[in-house]
Amino acid sequence: MPHIVLLTDFGTKDWFVASMKGVILGIYPSAAIVDITHEIPQGDIRAAAFALFASYRFFPENTVFTVVVDPGVGSKRKAIVADTGTYQFIAPDNGVLSFALREHADVVVREIKNDTFFRKPVSSTFHGRDIFATVSAHLLKGVDPDEMGPVVKKWITIDWPDLSIADNEVSGAVIYIDHFGNAFTNITVESIKHLIKPSCFFAPDNAGPLPLVHYYEEVAHGKACALVNSAGYIEIAVNGGNAAQQYSLSTGSPVQIRSV
Amino acid sequence: MPHIVLLTDFGTKDWFVASMKGVILGIYPSAAIVDITHEIPQGDIRAAAFALFASYRFFPENTVFTVVVDPGVGSKRKAIVADTGTYQFIAPDNGVLSFALREHADVVVREIKNDTFFRKPVSSTFHGRDIFATVSAHLLKGVDPDEMGPVVKKWITIDWPDLSIADNEVSGAVIYIDHFGNAFTNITVESIKHLIKPSCFFAPDNAGPLPLVHYYEEVAHGKACALVNSAGYIEIAVNGGNAAQQYSLSTGSPVQIRSV
Amino acid sequence: MPHIVLLTDFGTKDWFVASMKGVILGIYPSAAIVDITHEIPQGDIRAAAFALFASYRFFPENTVFTVVVDPGVGSKRKAIVADTGTYQFIAPDNGVLSFALREHADVVVREIKNDTFFRKPVSSTFHGRDIFATVSAHLLKGVDPDEMGPVVKKWITIDWPDLSIADNEVSGAVIYIDHFGNAFTNITVESIKHLIKPSCFFAPDNAGPLPLVHYYEEVAHGKACALVNSAGYIEIAVNGGNAAQQYSLSTGSPVQIRSV
Repeated sequence: MPHIVLLTDFGTKDWFVASMKGVILGIYPSAAIVDITHEIPQGDIRAAAFALFASYRFFPENTVFTVVVDPGVGSKRKAIVADTGTYQFIAPDNGVLSFALREHADVVVREIKNDTFFRKPVSSTFHGRDIFATVSAHLLKGVDPDEMGPVVKKWITIDWPDLSIADNEVSGAVIYIDHFGNAFTNITVESIKHLIKPSCFFAPDNAGPLPLVHYYEEVAHGKACALVNSAGYIEIAVNGGNAAQQYSLSTGSPVQIRSV
Repeated sequence: MPHIVLLTDFGTKDWFVASMKGVILGIYPSAAIVDITHEIPQGDIRAAAFALFASYRFFPENTVFTVVVDPGVGSKRKAIVADTGTYQFIAPDNGVLSFALREHADVVVREIKNDTFFRKPVSSTFHGRDIFATVSAHLLKGVDPDEMGPVVKKWITIDWPDLSIADNEVSGAVIYIDHFGNAFTNITVESIKHLIKPSCFFAPDNAGPLPLVHYYEEVAHGKACALVNSAGYIEIAVNGGNAAQQYSLSTGSPVQIRSV
Repeated sequence: MPHIVLLTDFGTKDWFVASMKGVILGIYPSAAIVDITHEIPQGDIRAAAFALFASYRFFPENTVFTVVVDPGVGSKRKAIVADTGTYQFIAPDNGVLSFALREHADVVVREIKNDTFFRKPVSSTFHGRDIFATVSAHLLKGVDPDEMGPVVKKWITIDWPDLSIADNEVSGAVIYIDHFGNAFTNITVESIKHLIKPSCFFAPDNAGPLPLVHYYEEVAHGKACALVNSAGYIEIAVNGGNAAQQYSLSTGSPVQIRSV
């Protein structure tokens, strides 16, 4: 029983996601459809790339991921299907898959060109329904990805933010703010193993040092801490509060872990 | 494998939708339940009617649609089931089905009266759970709609907004604002075929003319355009922005397509 | 076909719930997963306990409920599985199950200690994924709860708010505000049966009396009323409006039903 997983910026107040699900179920009536989220900020390819990267690995083999954050819909931007052997990812070629695919050097990426698998007529504003949903449903049914179009060697990637590692300090940045206001950074637990008594400092006020703890309740209610989060990265949090609001953190805010 | 599709104004923060799903699954454990949305504004029958109209056609045959936007719950308003041959729609008789049903002249509508298929005791504030969910699950199981109650020849309809077609101008109105702030109008692509060099003008400032384009990125980021959207209607959009906010558009705002 | 039902405070904008679903589907690919809500206010154990209490009874036998409102994640707080014979509930031991369990005197509660059923390594910030999801999926598959750990005789409970019953008056409080602004109280329909011409009064302005009606439209649009809601409790509502906003009601606001 394979699964199809959706990730979009379509929001939840309209019928756009439901239209995609209807189209999928028309092709594959017993498809099991799971949502990652549909609340990616409008056109925010980086946020979608990160949400996919952080979650895809928890799904079983053969899951098909359909990612539609597509500000260029209707233009000449390509559509692609990426096959890692374990997973298939379908998306516009705008970088939204690039964080997930950097973990799969041997991925085979194809341009989606075979309109046999499209819904006709293809609208110029809703490829989520007319191309991505239909192609995904056919892949789920077992159609071989090589029927979708030719292999491409290049696709658009977006940069993973730089991590700078020195003897006494590892410097990175906030890459995501979650629902709780926790600020995820790009600093991995491995990258700070050489630091003696590591502590966390961060912009905009070079606040800190924050203690590195194991779980939120190690600090008092309302107090900030840094810890290794469930994705393996350093996260800045406030126990019972909202770190991003309290410290004006946003994507790109600099963060350092220093020996003290 | 038939599907049951839910559309309500119950919101997503409480347990109301889950209660309906629990009741459905108790009657039909393998029911595949899909949500259109539960964020219809409280009691907004027109918005729900439009969301249903715009999405039902993408679902496979035999889908059962359960629509609960029901400000008159508990009063003497009727409950109805409409059978188009392809689809079944269950709702309070308040007009919420009327946009979908105008496309099905031969629909058979029945009043739901047979309390055999209700959950007892029937509450006076939650027919979504005690009547609409249970009736829907039984229909999904294959109970004949004629067991639900007598055929009725009249049911409440709400007006589709007028479209005025002249030699040089087609006049309509905004009928829906979506998550992105795109303003859907009731002006169809067919209705403007006779216009020479059509352009879009709209209230409140008689703004325009906007170019009619094929996809959002044909205009610069932050610029407005009009285009035929994925439902076949003229839509006013801002590339990468929010047209409704930028131009104070709301449901009912007048829109014209004129030869220029 | 058993079902697994999720209730969390994880919100819907991130991938946390999807990660749990991916883990569940990896263990039990045909699991049917239903959401109650993921919009419980951050760490609000009382709101989650009430949402579970109000909804679990509508699901079929053998449903597994996975409740993750877990401000103490990673600390020494226990994880428990409660088996009522009809349902299984999995949650941190922080009181979040206590409203549901007060209806099941013969419930068997076990501490979850057997890490055979955990995802390894267990993170210190996301037991929802690494413990609660995996244990739930194994229970759904038929693993006996007694494999999860030893029976415990004590677990954390939170108080159901007091109800005071006198000859002429029943006094209670608001226990939940729903999406529509309806204020649910802890006053049951049974508790007010002895009152003659009962009317509703409530803080903060000792407003009232409100008539006790059967459905919202018995009062004019915009007017307040009290009625027995779909959960069997007195609720304060405004027909077509938002009672909580209009009367500054919140959880804990005192409410009385008096003979007049």
